[in-house]
Amino acid sequence: MSADNTENKKPWSGRFLRPTDAAVEAFTSSITFDSRLYPYDIAGSIAHCRTLAKAGVITDVEAGALIEGLKKVCADIESNHMAFEDRLEDIHMHIEDRLFMHVGDLAKKLHTGRSRNDQVAVDVRLYLKEETTGIISGLARLREALVDLAERKIDTVMPGYTHLQRAQPILFSHHIMAYYEMFTRDCARFSDALSRMDVMPLGSAALAGTTYPIDRHYTAGLLGFSQISENSIDAVSDRDFMMETMSAAGICMIHLSRFSEELVLWSSSEFSFISLDDAFCTGSSIMPQKKNPDIPELVRGKTGRVIGDLTALFMLMKSLPLAYNRDMQEDKPLVFDSMDTLFACIDIYSRLVPNIRVNNKTTKLAAQSGYLNATDLADWLATAGMPFRQAHECAGRAVAYAIKQNKELHELSLDELRAFSPLIKDDIFDALSLDTVISRRRSYGGTARQNVIAAISRAKEALEAVNGSEICKEKTGE
Amino acid sequence: MSADNTENKKPWSGRFLRPTDAAVEAFTSSITFDSRLYPYDIAGSIAHCRTLAKAGVITDVEAGALIEGLKKVCADIESNHMAFEDRLEDIHMHIEDRLFMHVGDLAKKLHTGRSRNDQVAVDVRLYLKEETTGIISGLARLREALVDLAERKIDTVMPGYTHLQRAQPILFSHHIMAYYEMFTRDCARFSDALSRMDVMPLGSAALAGTTYPIDRHYTAGLLGFSQISENSIDAVSDRDFMMETMSAAGICMIHLSRFSEELVLWSSSEFSFISLDDAFCTGSSIMPQKKNPDIPELVRGKTGRVIGDLTALFMLMKSLPLAYNRDMQEDKPLVFDSMDTLFACIDIYSRLVPNIRVNNKTTKLAAQSGYLNATDLADWLATAGMPFRQAHECAGRAVAYAIKQNKELHELSLDELRAFSPLIKDDIFDALSLDTVISRRRSYGGTARQNVIAAISRAKEALEAVNGSEICKEKTGE
Amino acid sequence: MSADNTENKKPWSGRFLRPTDAAVEAFTSSITFDSRLYPYDIAGSIAHCRTLAKAGVITDVEAGALIEGLKKVCADIESNHMAFEDRLEDIHMHIEDRLFMHVGDLAKKLHTGRSRNDQVAVDVRLYLKEETTGIISGLARLREALVDLAERKIDTVMPGYTHLQRAQPILFSHHIMAYYEMFTRDCARFSDALSRMDVMPLGSAALAGTTYPIDRHYTAGLLGFSQISENSIDAVSDRDFMMETMSAAGICMIHLSRFSEELVLWSSSEFSFISLDDAFCTGSSIMPQKKNPDIPELVRGKTGRVIGDLTALFMLMKSLPLAYNRDMQEDKPLVFDSMDTLFACIDIYSRLVPNIRVNNKTTKLAAQSGYLNATDLADWLATAGMPFRQAHECAGRAVAYAIKQNKELHELSLDELRAFSPLIKDDIFDALSLDTVISRRRSYGGTARQNVIAAISRAKEALEAVNGSEICKEKTGE
Amino acid sequence: MSADNTENKKPWSGRFLRPTDAAVEAFTSSITFDSRLYPYDIAGSIAHCRTLAKAGVITDVEAGALIEGLKKVCADIESNHMAFEDRLEDIHMHIEDRLFMHVGDLAKKLHTGRSRNDQVAVDVRLYLKEETTGIISGLARLREALVDLAERKIDTVMPGYTHLQRAQPILFSHHIMAYYEMFTRDCARFSDALSRMDVMPLGSAALAGTTYPIDRHYTAGLLGFSQISENSIDAVSDRDFMMETMSAAGICMIHLSRFSEELVLWSSSEFSFISLDDAFCTGSSIMPQKKNPDIPELVRGKTGRVIGDLTALFMLMKSLPLAYNRDMQEDKPLVFDSMDTLFACIDIYSRLVPNIRVNNKTTKLAAQSGYLNATDLADWLATAGMPFRQAHECAGRAVAYAIKQNKELHELSLDELRAFSPLIKDDIFDALSLDTVISRRRSYGGTARQNVIAAISRAKEALEAVNGSEICKEKTGE
Repeated sequence: MSADNTENKKPWSGRFLRPTDAAVEAFTSSITFDSRLYPYDIAGSIAHCRTLAKAGVITDVEAGALIEGLKKVCADIESNHMAFEDRLEDIHMHIEDRLFMHVGDLAKKLHTGRSRNDQVAVDVRLYLKEETTGIISGLARLREALVDLAERKIDTVMPGYTHLQRAQPILFSHHIMAYYEMFTRDCARFSDALSRMDVMPLGSAALAGTTYPIDRHYTAGLLGFSQISENSIDAVSDRDFMMETMSAAGICMIHLSRFSEELVLWSSSEFSFISLDDAFCTGSSIMPQKKNPDIPELVRGKTGRVIGDLTALFMLMKSLPLAYNRDMQEDKPLVFDSMDTLFACIDIYSRLVPNIRVNNKTTKLAAQSGYLNATDLADWLATAGMPFRQAHECAGRAVAYAIKQNKELHELSLDELRAFSPLIKDDIFDALSLDTVISRRRSYGGTARQNVIAAISRAKEALEAVNGSEICKEKTGE
Repeated sequence: MSADNTENKKPWSGRFLRPTDAAVEAFTSSITFDSRLYPYDIAGSIAHCRTLAKAGVITDVEAGALIEGLKKVCADIESNHMAFEDRLEDIHMHIEDRLFMHVGDLAKKLHTGRSRNDQVAVDVRLYLKEETTGIISGLARLREALVDLAERKIDTVMPGYTHLQRAQPILFSHHIMAYYEMFTRDCARFSDALSRMDVMPLGSAALAGTTYPIDRHYTAGLLGFSQISENSIDAVSDRDFMMETMSAAGICMIHLSRFSEELVLWSSSEFSFISLDDAFCTGSSIMPQKKNPDIPELVRGKTGRVIGDLTALFMLMKSLPLAYNRDMQEDKPLVFDSMDTLFACIDIYSRLVPNIRVNNKTTKLAAQSGYLNATDLADWLATAGMPFRQAHECAGRAVAYAIKQNKELHELSLDELRAFSPLIKDDIFDALSLDTVISRRRSYGGTARQNVIAAISRAKEALEAVNGSEICKEKTGE
Repeated sequence: MSADNTENKKPWSGRFLRPTDAAVEAFTSSITFDSRLYPYDIAGSIAHCRTLAKAGVITDVEAGALIEGLKKVCADIESNHMAFEDRLEDIHMHIEDRLFMHVGDLAKKLHTGRSRNDQVAVDVRLYLKEETTGIISGLARLREALVDLAERKIDTVMPGYTHLQRAQPILFSHHIMAYYEMFTRDCARFSDALSRMDVMPLGSAALAGTTYPIDRHYTAGLLGFSQISENSIDAVSDRDFMMETMSAAGICMIHLSRFSEELVLWSSSEFSFISLDDAFCTGSSIMPQKKNPDIPELVRGKTGRVIGDLTALFMLMKSLPLAYNRDMQEDKPLVFDSMDTLFACIDIYSRLVPNIRVNNKTTKLAAQSGYLNATDLADWLATAGMPFRQAHECAGRAVAYAIKQNKELHELSLDELRAFSPLIKDDIFDALSLDTVISRRRSYGGTARQNVIAAISRAKEALEAVNGSEICKEKTGE
Repeated sequence: MSADNTENKKPWSGRFLRPTDAAVEAFTSSITFDSRLYPYDIAGSIAHCRTLAKAGVITDVEAGALIEGLKKVCADIESNHMAFEDRLEDIHMHIEDRLFMHVGDLAKKLHTGRSRNDQVAVDVRLYLKEETTGIISGLARLREALVDLAERKIDTVMPGYTHLQRAQPILFSHHIMAYYEMFTRDCARFSDALSRMDVMPLGSAALAGTTYPIDRHYTAGLLGFSQISENSIDAVSDRDFMMETMSAAGICMIHLSRFSEELVLWSSSEFSFISLDDAFCTGSSIMPQKKNPDIPELVRGKTGRVIGDLTALFMLMKSLPLAYNRDMQEDKPLVFDSMDTLFACIDIYSRLVPNIRVNNKTTKLAAQSGYLNATDLADWLATAGMPFRQAHECAGRAVAYAIKQNKELHELSLDELRAFSPLIKDDIFDALSLDTVISRRRSYGGTARQNVIAAISRAKEALEAVNGSEICKEKTGE
């Protein structure tokens, strides 16, 4: 089945008297999940070959042959010509074993001056750099979708909520732009994580560095890393880059969960603020009338998953002595699951957002009932000279009166209003109108239409800058 | 590819104007993970057929044909003749779709009086009952292995530790029996969880109960449930049985992590208390001398995973309004991962424990150095009439003196000892001997040899009782 | 300041050459949080005195004097006559130090045959037994409040939801009784935890058992424990009882979070299903009209806290070698915070539930719009002979048609309905009426009025049984 | 007791008919924990006064009087002249209530144009900026202590470990510098978090912005913020800055837990690599000989606490609709606890590290036994032309042979060694010597002495730069 370069021996069997138990092989094997690291592992090995050749540890001819062989292994994997087996433990051993089939004994020189400890560190960093870049791109698309929605719906008025109680009227676009801000911060966090993970560990070997005179900066350049690790023990022990990126993923999922919650609420009969396109919903196997907001629900549910992965990673790293411990093998399923889940959620939302239909009439109606202009009555009174606390209480009593009358504030007569304060004059009705209430909130960042239009415009500029930049190349390689 | 019973329509397509987006199908599909529920889903459907027939909703002939068809579907799946596709969403729809191929339009009657909401609830409960039973059996095997080890090693003396500092001498068997106690408690927790999950939800339909006059106790009997759910809304909303079982799994993993930590410590050059069989270790790709305790390390690492799953489940259930929400689809990968991981860890340890070799000499030597008999000096003094606090301080000063002399307490002369208290007499040396120190700790649960032998004997009786019982039948069906 | 029984020396200062650094004292002290364990610590010490006397280790007179002294210490603490200081580390040392003031040198005999390791284990078990009992009582009161509400509101119809979409009409009482079921399961879980924590550890001493001939069953009897620990190492290492109880607390908080979410939703303008009494809400400092459902929001937020405590406990216990490690000092703030939070949430809800006002008209109106009887149309067709899947699709098309007409199903004419199936007859309108839809869901556990009344009646019986029982005595001692 | 500016009315009582229930007041009050925000709240209010005056909303005289009054409130609090009561809910209301006592009705103007929602947002950001700065300073001190230790111990050789098995000899200083790298990364993460939290939310009011013509950049300048928030809804809904900082805290605690684990291991009798000063250890109440590494144990235990807080925060934020919800009140105990715990751990370690005594002889002895030079034998063979994999296996067989002979590799004779490969020559013994093994690992980041000295030198330069910078001013205000 496999090239018998070791007569079925492990790479470390020299000092062992008995072969590994089959149940142990199955339990300890990581090939079922780390096989996806193959492109990074092969890229790392190719760079390692070049580095060894540059240092004179192997000849240029040997390096060429090894690189040729590694490319064949890559092709074998991509064409499904290579079986994965527990016996060969992990992706590193599979590739070396297959390499032997292509280049014979020369393959046994590849592992000179490195260890699986620094090899897996470089693989996972390459993987995560690519994933993180993909997530930043995905977020850019989602932010674009949000900005587009905000731009299209600039005339939609809705209630703003606190405590899920109607609070003050806002522009729907202003609300959507709040999510734009969150995802923009997420991008910044992922960028910071990206620059901190951009550190090349190869050359650290098992933990103490290598005795071969290799040029680690050269390796880093070949692999596109901007820095090299400063301390070989740290280089093979460190999983900060995972913890940091997965924390950023958790925060991003929190944003997605909040957006999801709102989409679920807004899709309910009670709110009826939006409807999602049929293509983005599913129905019920028993209730013929159902059209369910499955995607927001699933995204909300997947939030737990990503944060559970982070908890697991923290727990596995806790109290591990330096340097590498086998516990760390368990980091990979966690980071893979988190990144896959986050990317899928971002991606599906960048598709769903353009398919949100907003029921302008319902949202406007909602903004007009529930005394959302009570603050403006208080502000009017405060501007007229009443201390704000008194103005607030006065407006509160007016609300209590209006509730009893089953009217809104702006439906009360001037006389009724003046019963709460003789300061009140006729222009109060303008102050209480929906348009005025919104347009007067002109403090920077407020919901006034001109503010929101300006914010949209700034966002579009920022996104254009992102799209022009290096980082936002398409996610590849999956 | 599949029986086209619905002309590729969803089971709920009646009110929908547009087909589901392909990316949405992929995002919402659960078939990649819920396919493993097929035996439970088919068992549930067979019981449902019988119940419908008993209620006269379908005829006995129809029921017979449906059951025959369902068995064929089961055979199709087990012989890999059935492809799984995102288009068909989940295992329920796959089975119904395939059933149509076998029995035609009759298949469309199967879903009468039920919903996927109660269907998945029954599936997961059946699954988890079986898994939990399997884990209890696995724990019984592990407990047996521990008791065997304790019995074989009854003569091994080692230091007991607190704060990882040598504290008092103990029997190695006493230490091992501490783990027996932990795993015994785990069994009790899983048994309690098992009895609370043994509740049949079918008949709750979407959430409000069904209009068909079915006998739910009859269904429960067919499926081996001892109780039926009391409230249909709760029945489809409840995931307590998962949270409880996964909490118990988390606690059990904590025990395994503690045992793992100790095996790692004891395998180190510094402790050298045990060695693990070559068949249960692996080596290094770079360092030829290495023999690593991979299994304990991996088990320790997997602890995070199980507790991460629990965190994720808690987070996904938090704040969900009643009844079913699509978020709950995400519960399955979590519970599957937890149960698989826990079972694998228990299983590998029940194989590893018999392969632990204890270095009696090293452990005994360790028990004799480090002043582990200082408490006994204090106890001797207290028994001789000195208040314990003074006795403690007196012994403490003797230790400080002995450290300076580079001797152990029992290596000091009587005169040296009497300098700390004139109460001290010649029989102090017997009191400080390793054998006496251990044998005098005869309080129930203490480390005296006769106590430990009695504990082992009680454990063997308990395990025999377990092995004779119903619950400990072999885990099946994976 | 304190009785200088040790000339300011630590109880363990014998072998130490330098005093403890003040910053270290502050960092390691636990007195700020473990002081609340004083009643349990004193009760444990009193039982220990009696046990030592019974074993002849101290005289009856000595025991009497020590017990008298301990009671005085208790009085000192309760009258705030005793200062807590970092120098004395923990509650155990404070009590012993104060005891010296009352009984002099005799105090130095109290610690004979025990260690702080088994002392804190007994304290925390006594504490948690009491707390758990209190929580079970609190849950009984909450369940009563729910059953009362269900009984009072038996005529209220509301929509049942899945995916937060209106699904089928249900009785409000049926929905409330779903929570009754959850909290009933919580009680069962806490009861199981209670019986597993009811194990007396004293006599385990540091870890190996004690050399004094004490009768541990006697101590257990004095302290109200039903069992004694089997293994001294396990006894001082084990925190399962905390992990299990805090897991149960987490599950209970999940239930409370779901109820909270619904109360928040139902209090919104959009739902308007309920209003909470003014006394249970607060307002806004800026918006005069606001009345916020703060309590449900806070309870929902506190869910994270309790589960965070559990995560912390798991993380701290992970990988700890046996036996006691100082890390375990950190368990107490976690368990205190969890139990306090859970109890406060249960308690406030048992007060809030009777103050929920339900807007019957709104809920009924909601149950009548949104095609909640579509399942019944499908069921009617299935009963008339159409396979359920076809019936479902047929009803789905009728819904799509009705949406276009802006009508409900029961507002369509017979002819309009018959366009979807010629099977349909005049009695379909009865089948689609709200009353029929509810009353026909008579399967056990379904929402039919007679079912719900029976369920309420069973619940009242169960609660009476609980109230009559031992366990439900009032929570005391806080 | 308090200034009765509202006749015991709530600031929002206008529309309420019934007063708040006392149990509800106790449950919802946050004053027990948010009182510590007073300096930030007062600073925010002072800046708000100035902003209102600049905008002409209040006069300069009014502003002056309010500011004077606020300073008096600050003095009242600092001199303990102000009682905190549940009735007044939170720190904001306490300060306003007290302000009334000092300035009368004018106090009622303070809340113009703001809400508690943006007020608490600014308070917590000010608080967290200060804490984060303090943590960065604390980490600088800890890094200095580590670099000092590394410099002092540059001659200490010890075994490097993987899987807790001896792997290759390293310099103790190299190992210590690995922690320096970790804490340096932590500083970078906290700095990034700091710049992202440096955003001023005031002026967002409840959620929609304010109607008053205020200059938010002016306010930001007064409070030392470099940016202002872009979106008012986001500004009051956002807790990213907490999640990010607490994630960074979690990662930092993971580093501390790993260091703690190693200190505990190294302090054990089995390792005996270090001893901690008596002043940094405590003893046992029962075992006179014990000297326990309590601080590392407690720090390790506190890791769970900080990560539990993070889990709690994630869980509380999950699925919250915009904007402010009362759940978010629960964020404060979590962030306070995390920051306090982290700072205390960093601080105690910066004191403990200089008190670590290293047992050079023991560490060197350990580095010489256990075949830690086996890699160098393999490297020697590989350099001599044998492919590395064969060289590895050859060295492995030599190790197996040496184990049987009970010798180390360098204790074998040349003939014995040559039995494994005729390539081996006399200079192998130099290659296997401890000094050579270390000094040959000269790849950048490796353990060779000259590398480590250079790394220490770079670190000292970096720390000097930090000490000279703005950010590293002393943490104040606790």
